[in-house]
Amino acid sequence: MRTVRLLLGPRSYDIVIGEGTLDTLDTLLPFAGLGDASAFAVVADRATGPAIERTLKALERTGLPVHSIVLAIDERLKSAAGLDALYDRFIAEGLDRHSVIVALGGGVVGDLAGYAAATFVRGVRWIGIPTTLLAAVDSAIGGKTAINHARGKNLIGAIHQPSLVVVDRTTFATLPAREIVSGYGEMLKYGLALDRRLWNDLIMMAPASVGDVQIERCVARKAAIVATDERDVSGEREVLNFGHTIGHAIESATNYGYYRHGEAVILGMRAALHLSHARGHLAPDVLQTVDAQLAGVAVPPLPPLDRETLVDAISRDKKKGSGGRTRFVLLRSIGQTLADDRVESKQIRASLDFLESACASPS
Amino acid sequence: MRTVRLLLGPRSYDIVIGEGTLDTLDTLLPFAGLGDASAFAVVADRATGPAIERTLKALERTGLPVHSIVLAIDERLKSAAGLDALYDRFIAEGLDRHSVIVALGGGVVGDLAGYAAATFVRGVRWIGIPTTLLAAVDSAIGGKTAINHARGKNLIGAIHQPSLVVVDRTTFATLPAREIVSGYGEMLKYGLALDRRLWNDLIMMAPASVGDVQIERCVARKAAIVATDERDVSGEREVLNFGHTIGHAIESATNYGYYRHGEAVILGMRAALHLSHARGHLAPDVLQTVDAQLAGVAVPPLPPLDRETLVDAISRDKKKGSGGRTRFVLLRSIGQTLADDRVESKQIRASLDFLESACASPS
Repeated sequence: MRTVRLLLGPRSYDIVIGEGTLDTLDTLLPFAGLGDASAFAVVADRATGPAIERTLKALERTGLPVHSIVLAIDERLKSAAGLDALYDRFIAEGLDRHSVIVALGGGVVGDLAGYAAATFVRGVRWIGIPTTLLAAVDSAIGGKTAINHARGKNLIGAIHQPSLVVVDRTTFATLPAREIVSGYGEMLKYGLALDRRLWNDLIMMAPASVGDVQIERCVARKAAIVATDERDVSGEREVLNFGHTIGHAIESATNYGYYRHGEAVILGMRAALHLSHARGHLAPDVLQTVDAQLAGVAVPPLPPLDRETLVDAISRDKKKGSGGRTRFVLLRSIGQTLADDRVESKQIRASLDFLESACASPS
Repeated sequence: MRTVRLLLGPRSYDIVIGEGTLDTLDTLLPFAGLGDASAFAVVADRATGPAIERTLKALERTGLPVHSIVLAIDERLKSAAGLDALYDRFIAEGLDRHSVIVALGGGVVGDLAGYAAATFVRGVRWIGIPTTLLAAVDSAIGGKTAINHARGKNLIGAIHQPSLVVVDRTTFATLPAREIVSGYGEMLKYGLALDRRLWNDLIMMAPASVGDVQIERCVARKAAIVATDERDVSGEREVLNFGHTIGHAIESATNYGYYRHGEAVILGMRAALHLSHARGHLAPDVLQTVDAQLAGVAVPPLPPLDRETLVDAISRDKKKGSGGRTRFVLLRSIGQTLADDRVESKQIRASLDFLESACASPS
């Protein structure tokens, strides 16, 4: 069992990583300051299957009431209506301010149940149990919770740190291959942007064979950044957006239905590498080597996209530099980034040309 | 100008009290860490009248965009629907995470706009400008924000501290007399429960003549308690509930439409005094003196209430002691309380009998 501690003063907490950790959940509670819980409500994605039973069983050993709220998870549940349905269940189960919410599932469950925990009776404690590789290395760390609004994703939300995060790789066993690649793509980002050794390890591995060592390394990187910039205000968290400005634009332009998040990040990183070179930050041989390595990861071909829609989505990206220009996180070398807010629009277009020629399906 | 600082580490903030402070709002911003605001959105109760123009004018001197969202305030706005309408306005005005919300009005505006600030783009900064005496000494201090749910008041919410609170007594000028009594009732609570000197001062004054000195004293008492028990978990905040257990029950039994909050608290304190004596905590002469002083404050007569509804509402009160008994904050002497969770139901009934005989309208 590996433990990463996210240091945030009185809001510090452990991220516990290991096979079978889920089954020892009850023994972890006292160390997470949850020994005084009055009840547990497990909000679970139906798709997590056997993990639900395992979680309930471990919690029932505490002798406390354990409520099970199993949902057919869908991005549409991350809405005001989905939230309200969850509040209704909390009230129906008689939860109070000493109850603890357990979010069992991928990013959608973590965001929704975490946000419900942030706002029910002005905030109750919660445990995150990410059951996708992507959530384990990304959204489950750092306390960001949110629901969507008709006008934008994650527009309503809160920073509400969990009391404990439990990552049990056995829960990933039933994930589709593309979901594993998605998590792997986000892991590659940590390597490329922050950790050369992690990059070297990951790039030698098949996505399905990443282990607790690599997961821990990603989690530790994110935890260290969140510890210095919890509310995403001082800039330290910016580096985590490497590959995301163009990646988000691709997700948005394909209506979030075609690519999984980490797949889009892989494409976004390839475009960002190209931009890094065009802006004079990255040596041509590094560009070539790294791009060839990223090209080796199986991602669906880029569908034909309206160029102006993409450029618009990029310039709407929330990270704005001086003069209203989009601020890009670019690569200087493997493991080292810089922020550049002087990228010209023709350079963005050139990086998209490159991506199109490299990733479009053969016609 | 008087300033009380609420000490909460990086979330510390000033409560500024004085006549005309509203007109100097722009000069207070840099000291509140708001020098980097991108825009302001003033969420105002239409009933605050001239205070709206004064607030807008002061903010416009910053040269930044100032948006005005004036609402006909009503407790029904403190709902998921009212919140959603506010988000829509925020989005329509183009607010972002660097925008600052200004809540101008009484408790409903502070709760609603403060909660919207807590949750819009995962939290933006806000300024509280309470324009009722009650909000100035109570709900505006401590960062509690909330909306109501069909199943209960303030069931959904967040603790989200403001960056600045500005109390300007000139904004109270248009308040109806009963609203002033309501604030005065809450101030009497601070005196009776915590501060003998404040009590002695207040009881010699007409409600309409309380000044900045007394407001500051109440604010300082609440700020000191919030600083040690921000999330209302360690028990320090409990003393603020003096008079509230029975007060809340009276508000609930009269459907929140008959009494103003501070009026119900005055009745709740009278019943609590009676209970304090019945439980052997309070000397009979103190009971007599203090009850006579409270009886001198003009509060509408108690309507006929179903006794069982009241007793039920009291026992549903969220403060529960051991064995599921309601935990009462009772008086030992002026300025000194204790918690008692062994109050018997016949003692509660006797205190209600007393209240009825003392406060019912003459038939």
